[in-house]
Amino acid sequence: MKEQNIKIDLATTKKQKPAADQLVFGKQFTDHMFVADYTEGKGWHDKRIVPYEPITLDPSAMIFHYGQTVFEGLKAYMGQDGSIRLFRPEKNMERLNKSSNRLSMPKVDEALALEALKKLITIDKDWIPNAEGTSLYIRPFMISTESNLSVSPSKKYRFMIILSPVGAYYKEGINPVKILVENEYIRAVAGGTGTAKTAGNYAASLKAQEEADQKGFSQVLWLDGVEKKFVEEVGSMNIFFKINGEIVTPALNGSILEGVTRNSIIQVLKHWGMRVKERKISMKEVQEAHHNGQLEEAFGTGTAAVISPIGELNWEGEEMVVNEGKTGEISKKLYETLTGIQLGKLEDPFDWVVELPKESSVK
Amino acid sequence: MKEQNIKIDLATTKKQKPAADQLVFGKQFTDHMFVADYTEGKGWHDKRIVPYEPITLDPSAMIFHYGQTVFEGLKAYMGQDGSIRLFRPEKNMERLNKSSNRLSMPKVDEALALEALKKLITIDKDWIPNAEGTSLYIRPFMISTESNLSVSPSKKYRFMIILSPVGAYYKEGINPVKILVENEYIRAVAGGTGTAKTAGNYAASLKAQEEADQKGFSQVLWLDGVEKKFVEEVGSMNIFFKINGEIVTPALNGSILEGVTRNSIIQVLKHWGMRVKERKISMKEVQEAHHNGQLEEAFGTGTAAVISPIGELNWEGEEMVVNEGKTGEISKKLYETLTGIQLGKLEDPFDWVVELPKESSVK
Ligand SMILES: Cc1ncc(COP(=O)(O)O)c(C=O)c1O
Ligand SMILES: Cc1ncc(COP(=O)(O)O)c(C=O)c1O
Repeated sequence: MKEQNIKIDLATTKKQKPAADQLVFGKQFTDHMFVADYTEGKGWHDKRIVPYEPITLDPSAMIFHYGQTVFEGLKAYMGQDGSIRLFRPEKNMERLNKSSNRLSMPKVDEALALEALKKLITIDKDWIPNAEGTSLYIRPFMISTESNLSVSPSKKYRFMIILSPVGAYYKEGINPVKILVENEYIRAVAGGTGTAKTAGNYAASLKAQEEADQKGFSQVLWLDGVEKKFVEEVGSMNIFFKINGEIVTPALNGSILEGVTRNSIIQVLKHWGMRVKERKISMKEVQEAHHNGQLEEAFGTGTAAVISPIGELNWEGEEMVVNEGKTGEISKKLYETLTGIQLGKLEDPFDWVVELPKESSVK
Repeated sequence: MKEQNIKIDLATTKKQKPAADQLVFGKQFTDHMFVADYTEGKGWHDKRIVPYEPITLDPSAMIFHYGQTVFEGLKAYMGQDGSIRLFRPEKNMERLNKSSNRLSMPKVDEALALEALKKLITIDKDWIPNAEGTSLYIRPFMISTESNLSVSPSKKYRFMIILSPVGAYYKEGINPVKILVENEYIRAVAGGTGTAKTAGNYAASLKAQEEADQKGFSQVLWLDGVEKKFVEEVGSMNIFFKINGEIVTPALNGSILEGVTRNSIIQVLKHWGMRVKERKISMKEVQEAHHNGQLEEAFGTGTAAVISPIGELNWEGEEMVVNEGKTGEISKKLYETLTGIQLGKLEDPFDWVVELPKESSVK
């Protein structure tokens, strides 16, 4: 997947870009997309940047039946200095390959996929919104494309990157959410696909999410599938608690996704000299901490919202209000630090940000 | 989905039908397919039988990202009497709707989906092979089609039925297989999607299947995800044991698929006056029965093979040969009974067979 091997076919007509206040998450896409095809025995071929357009597949394409697919989600940010920045994109490509391995799918060349991504963003850079809190959401994904109904790994795949301008996650400052602790449905168990970013995990989660919605909660907190006692993660976020001055988050136990934001936050907290523990956390412990007044903060972490403070946790009918339903100090400080680094407003002591060259050669 | 509302658009050119000895499972499809579209607020619309052709979807179609999809698998048999028979097809439509419910997808009208299926088979009836053991495999499936990257149930779906002529599963009589008891990977847990026929379950199973393949086993036997002690099911089959004269099979515990063949076999066995128990079965119990010489038979059951005798079970390195690696009496008798009913050679005391009218009005 050498960069110079990427064929570029630019769109002759450009779409209208949505106004900053009309950005809807994941419904509007830029003018181009990156595509590469894989055939067993031949490897990746036909790497190309082409106008954004529909995909044509046989009804027996394996993706429709046996669901081999992996994806990633990251963002490009337009700084006030006019620079385009990516946040740890190599971590997403690394995770994509980990996911692919679990799903018996081929690896992509991480460095070259990153080159393709940068090239694509450069071509569509006018699509990156620059209002406060907006960004360009990047969705790399791979699907199985062989026409075959036998249950076996596909011999053909397609890897694509599509881009979608997205609005501010928080309209006015960051807002705490109400979370329902899920007691019936299970997201994943060790030995399953929980550590992979693959469609089936999300399909499985919709039912619980729908029921939580109806009860007025914004997301569910998943418990472990074995004992239904231990905290796993929230919807599409990892979770952290501040209990009696210490920050804790569930350890990577083989069933939760290793979030890039989770990993970054652990490093930032340690950099600040705070104590962070990755370990098993039972709901009972969270409940007791709440009863003792030691549950100081709770927050979700993920690419979409960066930090999502939890104002209320509902477990078996018990409403546990956290920090009086307000955003905690650590939550706020982490949010400002991470978004500051992402936008180039703050120093980046971790070397996380990848800045795109200002003048592009393409166009 | 009234039958008369199905628009029929016949293919102007017909494809070459494969010779009986060149049938490959799930790679060749007939001339037509059934398609219906669903839009939230509008319901199912545009029911049609059209020439078999590719599907066109936006790269952001939800199926590629969040995997809402359900499917079914059943067969049409051409009897020596020239009649076309389906085996309990209403059970498959019922299961399709159960699966859809778990995946937050819309229901189809079961009776009308069955009408569409019959109409489609009648149109493509010349594709049903009639050599011993061959049949027409029927794949109804539904996919989410809305263009939207937010994690939520799709507002648009497509339901399709495609048909594939398939060869004999057993070339010379039924053959016992070697099965590996899986200790690392997990297929499903209660609270997950194990009872639904949905892509994610199959995607999750490929890794274990590949590793078993490499070790010379034809399929894996899944254990429960909680204690990794109890028998669940095999690849795409349910499992039965004959232990000391009694037939046992894992109970429907919320993580295994309720096979139509499983259900039929339980009824046949009871009809014969045999004792059948649906209950928890630990691998330890199976192992002890083997040690005591009481593990008399083991077999998988499913639409593809009907009965697949198990000649060897390998658990943690211990090779347990069942019935000297030969097909057991009950396995053989069940196979002959079920295939006999399916082909109209034997009486059908259960009223399972649905015969298609001999003269079709279409064509
Ligand atoms: C299930 C799940 N957990 C956690 C996360 C957070 O991961 P990240 O911080 O890499 O966005 C996501 C979102 O990507 C997710 O889908
Ligand atoms: C996971 C699984 N279990 C069991 C079965 C057997 O079900 P049936 O007898 O309905 O074919 C199948 C096949 O459909 C399957 O995919």
